[in-house]
Amino acid sequence: MTKPTFVDEELLKKVPRWRNYLAAKLGFRNHWYPIRFSREIAENAVVPVTLLGEHILLKRIDGKVYAIKDKCIHRGVRLSEKVECYTRGTITCWYHGFTYKWDTGVLCDVIASPETPIIGKRKIKTYPTREAKGLVFVFVGDDDYPLPDLSTDVPPTFLDDDMYVQGASYPVKSNWRIACENGIDPLHIYIHRESKLVPNTQRSIPLGHTASAAYEAAEVVVEEEGKPKGITHSIFREGEQNATMPLYEGKIEGRVVVQSTKMHSTPEEAREKRTTGSYVCLPGALRVDNFPYRGLFQFEWYVPISEDTHLYIITIGKRCATDQERGEYDHEFWHRWKPESLEGFNNDDIKAREALQPAYSKDRRWLEETFIREDKSIVTWRELCHRNGRGLQLPCHVDI
Amino acid sequence: MTKPTFVDEELLKKVPRWRNYLAAKLGFRNHWYPIRFSREIAENAVVPVTLLGEHILLKRIDGKVYAIKDKCIHRGVRLSEKVECYTRGTITCWYHGFTYKWDTGVLCDVIASPETPIIGKRKIKTYPTREAKGLVFVFVGDDDYPLPDLSTDVPPTFLDDDMYVQGASYPVKSNWRIACENGIDPLHIYIHRESKLVPNTQRSIPLGHTASAAYEAAEVVVEEEGKPKGITHSIFREGEQNATMPLYEGKIEGRVVVQSTKMHSTPEEAREKRTTGSYVCLPGALRVDNFPYRGLFQFEWYVPISEDTHLYIITIGKRCATDQERGEYDHEFWHRWKPESLEGFNNDDIKAREALQPAYSKDRRWLEETFIREDKSIVTWRELCHRNGRGLQLPCHVDI
Amino acid sequence: MTKPTFVDEELLKKVPRWRNYLAAKLGFRNHWYPIRFSREIAENAVVPVTLLGEHILLKRIDGKVYAIKDKCIHRGVRLSEKVECYTRGTITCWYHGFTYKWDTGVLCDVIASPETPIIGKRKIKTYPTREAKGLVFVFVGDDDYPLPDLSTDVPPTFLDDDMYVQGASYPVKSNWRIACENGIDPLHIYIHRESKLVPNTQRSIPLGHTASAAYEAAEVVVEEEGKPKGITHSIFREGEQNATMPLYEGKIEGRVVVQSTKMHSTPEEAREKRTTGSYVCLPGALRVDNFPYRGLFQFEWYVPISEDTHLYIITIGKRCATDQERGEYDHEFWHRWKPESLEGFNNDDIKAREALQPAYSKDRRWLEETFIREDKSIVTWRELCHRNGRGLQLPCHVDI
Repeated sequence: MTKPTFVDEELLKKVPRWRNYLAAKLGFRNHWYPIRFSREIAENAVVPVTLLGEHILLKRIDGKVYAIKDKCIHRGVRLSEKVECYTRGTITCWYHGFTYKWDTGVLCDVIASPETPIIGKRKIKTYPTREAKGLVFVFVGDDDYPLPDLSTDVPPTFLDDDMYVQGASYPVKSNWRIACENGIDPLHIYIHRESKLVPNTQRSIPLGHTASAAYEAAEVVVEEEGKPKGITHSIFREGEQNATMPLYEGKIEGRVVVQSTKMHSTPEEAREKRTTGSYVCLPGALRVDNFPYRGLFQFEWYVPISEDTHLYIITIGKRCATDQERGEYDHEFWHRWKPESLEGFNNDDIKAREALQPAYSKDRRWLEETFIREDKSIVTWRELCHRNGRGLQLPCHVDI
Repeated sequence: MTKPTFVDEELLKKVPRWRNYLAAKLGFRNHWYPIRFSREIAENAVVPVTLLGEHILLKRIDGKVYAIKDKCIHRGVRLSEKVECYTRGTITCWYHGFTYKWDTGVLCDVIASPETPIIGKRKIKTYPTREAKGLVFVFVGDDDYPLPDLSTDVPPTFLDDDMYVQGASYPVKSNWRIACENGIDPLHIYIHRESKLVPNTQRSIPLGHTASAAYEAAEVVVEEEGKPKGITHSIFREGEQNATMPLYEGKIEGRVVVQSTKMHSTPEEAREKRTTGSYVCLPGALRVDNFPYRGLFQFEWYVPISEDTHLYIITIGKRCATDQERGEYDHEFWHRWKPESLEGFNNDDIKAREALQPAYSKDRRWLEETFIREDKSIVTWRELCHRNGRGLQLPCHVDI
Repeated sequence: MTKPTFVDEELLKKVPRWRNYLAAKLGFRNHWYPIRFSREIAENAVVPVTLLGEHILLKRIDGKVYAIKDKCIHRGVRLSEKVECYTRGTITCWYHGFTYKWDTGVLCDVIASPETPIIGKRKIKTYPTREAKGLVFVFVGDDDYPLPDLSTDVPPTFLDDDMYVQGASYPVKSNWRIACENGIDPLHIYIHRESKLVPNTQRSIPLGHTASAAYEAAEVVVEEEGKPKGITHSIFREGEQNATMPLYEGKIEGRVVVQSTKMHSTPEEAREKRTTGSYVCLPGALRVDNFPYRGLFQFEWYVPISEDTHLYIITIGKRCATDQERGEYDHEFWHRWKPESLEGFNNDDIKAREALQPAYSKDRRWLEETFIREDKSIVTWRELCHRNGRGLQLPCHVDI
C-alpha cells in the first residue's frame, strides 16, 4: 500500500505524466537544498530552519555546519524551544536532558537519568550538509539514500572555480512550484515592463514574444546521468534568426494600447544588455545567463518551506579571477544589483507568485488551466520533475 | 452521481421536506441578487464583489453595468489583483495580458502572445445584470439557464412605477438563511422592545403574540408560475378580530417582569403606526408593509456572500408621483429612517443573527431545534425554498 | 455502532491498554471537576464557563451555585450572549424569552408566547454542583449517571476537616493530558533547577534521579471501590535506603556540565524542605506532600477546557485548627507561596506543557515516543485512566 500524499489520489490519477509533480506539494525528497547563506551561521550559533516541512537545527562547529532534526526522540519537543549546548559538540534537550552529538546524532547522555540503557544506542536524525559559494546546503532525504553529488542539484557553472557569488533571500507566501513556473514562463516578462531595472540598465524589455517555428527547438531537456535534471532554453536571443521575436507594442483590437521600453542602440550596445538563455533544474533552481547584465549569471532557488511558503534565494554570480575583482564585485552587488535587480525587478515576481497562490492552493485548480503554446515549457518542466524527482516529501516525513 | 454539497449527505437525508434548503448554505443558484447600489458603481469604475462565493468584477460602461468572473481563464489569477483596462470595453489580465470584452467575455487579445490561436474562441464567464430602483442585480446561474424575469425574484410591488426607493447595505457575520428566518420569525419582535424607533415613531411594540386559531389562516404560500415564490403574512394586524393578539406584558410564573411600549392612542393614531403584513420570497428577500411608518414599505435582502457572511441590503420604498415628492422623501430617508430604523432598529436583527451563527454554523444543529407553534412560518419557508429554489450553489461553483 | 471519537479509530486500536486515555482528548465524562474558586462567583452573579468543551452558565442564588447549559433549547443560541435574569430563580433567553429555572432547568415561561404548550414540559440541561475548600465543582456527565461522591474525584486528605486551602488558577495552552503527565513525570524536575523557589526555601533540588531496584516498589496503584482511582508515589524520599538517589551533578561524556542546588544542611534541616510523595488521580488531579514546604500539601487540577487548553488550578493546603491559624496561613499563601511557588516554580511547568502541545496535538505523535524506565509512571497512569475513566467526552457532547 502506498503512503498517503498531500494531494488527493483521484486528482493525481488525472495527470499520469506529471503525477509526482502535482504530489510534490512540499518538494522532492533526496535532494540538496540551500537554506541559509554561510554568513548567516556564525561559529557556535544554533539556527532553527524549516525545510520541506521538516524542522531542522543547524550549528557551525569549527567551521563546519551540522544539521539535526529539531525534535527530541523522547517526547517530541523541539530542542530549539530553549537551546542548551553545554559542550560545543553536543545539544541537550531542555526537558529531561537528553543530549545528542551534533556530528553523529548519537544520544550520548541523559542528564536527569544518566544510567538510561538507551544511551549510546539511539540517535536523532542528522542531515548531510555542504557549503558552496557562500550557501549552506542541506540534504533532505532518507537515511539509506546514496548521497548524490551536490553538482547534480545546482545549475551547471554555479560550482565553477571562478564563479563568485553574492545573494540574498526572501520568504514568499506561495508554494515552491508556482515560483518555478513563473521563473520559466517565457511570457511572464509582461509583469516586468515597468521595472526600475529597465531604465537603470538602459536595456530593452519586450512585452512578450511571438512564438515561431523555432520556439520548440530552443528548448532542450537534459536528463543525463550524473548531471542536474533540467531544461535549457534560449528563447531570449533577441534579434537572431532562429529564435522568437520580441514584442514591444501591445495591441487590443488592432490598436496599440501599451508600449514597453525599446532602446535605440547599436547592435554592440544591445548585446551588452541582452539575456541569452536560462537553465531550470531540480530540485527547483534557475540560472539566467547574462542577467541582470552582460557577464552576470543569476542563480536562484525556490526552496519549499511549507505548503504555502517558499524561501526565494537569489544569487548573482560573476566570473572573477582575483581578490580585487571579487572585492569590486562585492561593491557592485550590494550597491547596485541587490537594490536594482533583486528588489527592483524580482519583487514583481514575488507579487505574481503570491497572487497565483490562492488559485493553486486548491489542488484541483492545477487541472483547470487553459494553456497556450508558450506554456509548453511549464508542461515540459512538470513532466521532467515527474520522471526525475528522487522521492516525494509526504505527510509522514513532516512535523508541521 | 450527484455532485458534492457543502452539507453532509447523511444530514440532508434526515430532512426530506427541506433538504435543498439545508444544502443551500451558499444560496440558491439561477436567481437574481442585488449586490450594490447603483450609486456605488460610477461610470468606468471596476468594482470587485463576492456573491454566493463567486468572485465577480463589475464595471459600468456608458451607463450599463457589466459583470464577469474575476478569474483569468489562463492560470486562474484574479483580474482584480491589479486592474488593467486599456480600453473602455475590455479588461486585461496583469499577468500575461489576456484581454476580455466586458460585454461578451470573449478573449479578444493576449498582449504577450498576440497570435495565440484561442483568441476569439474562448471566453470568460459573464453574468447577466439588471438595474432597478437604484440597485444593481446580478444573475448567478448556469450559462444555459433561461433567464427569468427580475420580477420573479423581488417582492411584489418593488418594481411598481411609482415605488421610489432609498437604502443602504451592511455586511453581517452570519449565514443568509439565519437572516431570512429571523426576518420572518413572528416572535423575534421581543428583541426590538428597546429600539429607539419605538419612542421616535410613538408606536406601540409588543413583546410577542398569542397565537390564535386564525394564526395559520394569516399565512399564504404563493407558488404561482411567473411570480416570486414566497409567503405572505398578515400577523401584524393589531386589534383586528381574525389575527393574533399582541402582548405588552411579559410574565414569569404569573408575575409581570417586563413591559413593552403601548401607546394610548385613538384608533386613528394607532393605524398610522401599524405594520400590516410581510412578504418573504426567494432568493431571500422580505417586504414589510407600512414599516417603519404608514405608507412606507421596507424591502430587504439577505444576500449570500460566503458560508458565514451575508450582505444585508435594506431599502425603504414610498410611492411618489412627482420629483418634488421624491426629493422630500430623499431627505426623510437619509435624515430620519436610515439612522432611526436601519441603524436604530435593524441593528438588533444583525446582533441576533450574529449570535445565532455559532450554533447554525454546525450543520447538525439545524436538526437540534425545539420549535414552537409560531415557528411554523420558518418551517413553511424552508419547505417552500426546497420546492422552488432554482438550483443549489455547490462547492464546484465556488472559488473561495 | 460506537459513536465517533475525537481521535482516529485506527490509532486507538494500536494502544489497546490505554485506548480510552488516548481517546479522552476532551477529558473523561461522569466526573467532578473544579472550575472556579468560590470567591469568583458572587451572590447573583451569572458566570459563563467552558468545561470539557461544554458551555455552562453558573449562578449563585442564596449561597448555592447552580449550573445550566449555556444554550437555549429553542434555537441553540447562548444565553450568555445577553444575560436576562428577571427573577432571582430564573434566566430568560434574550431572543424569544424562553425562561428556565436555575434549580431544575424546567422551561417555566416563554415571554413572547406565554401559552406555548411545552412550558413546564421541557427543560434545559442542569449540572450538579458542589462547593468544597473554596472551590466550585461541576459534575459533567450523563443525566442518568448515578452521582458519585465528590471524595472519589479528589486526592485523599483534600476534604479533611482540618485541611485549609487557598489557591489560584491559570489558563494554559495545552491539552489536559500533557499537564497530568508532566506533573507525575519523576524526571521533569530538571526544568525546575533554576526556579526561584529553590533559594527562597533554601532547599536542595536534584537534576534527576538514578532509578534503583526500589523504583517500581515506590509506585502503588489504587483502584479500590469508593476511592479516587490513582497512583501514589514516594520517589522523592531523599536519602532513604529504599528510594531512588537524587542527582545534583549533570555530566556529558563524563564531564560535569551543570549543577543544581544542594544545600549543606543537617538531617533535621533537610527534612524541613523535603517533598515526600505524590498522589495523582482521576479525573486529572495531583497531590504533592510536603510541598512547597514541610506541612503543606499542593493539590492541583488540570481541567480540560478545549482540545488544546486546560485550566490549571493550583491550591496549597495546610492543616489548621483555629481561625487564627487560618488567618496566618492566608497571609503566608498570598504573600509567599503564590508569588514564590505558583508563579516562581509552576510557571516552569506551564512553559513545558505549552512546548509539548505542538507535538501532542497531532494524535499520531502519542505513538512515536521513546520512553525510558522513569517514564513507567506515565504508562501506568494512562492504563489506570483507561480502566477507570467513567466515560469518554465525545464530539456529540460538545458545542464548540
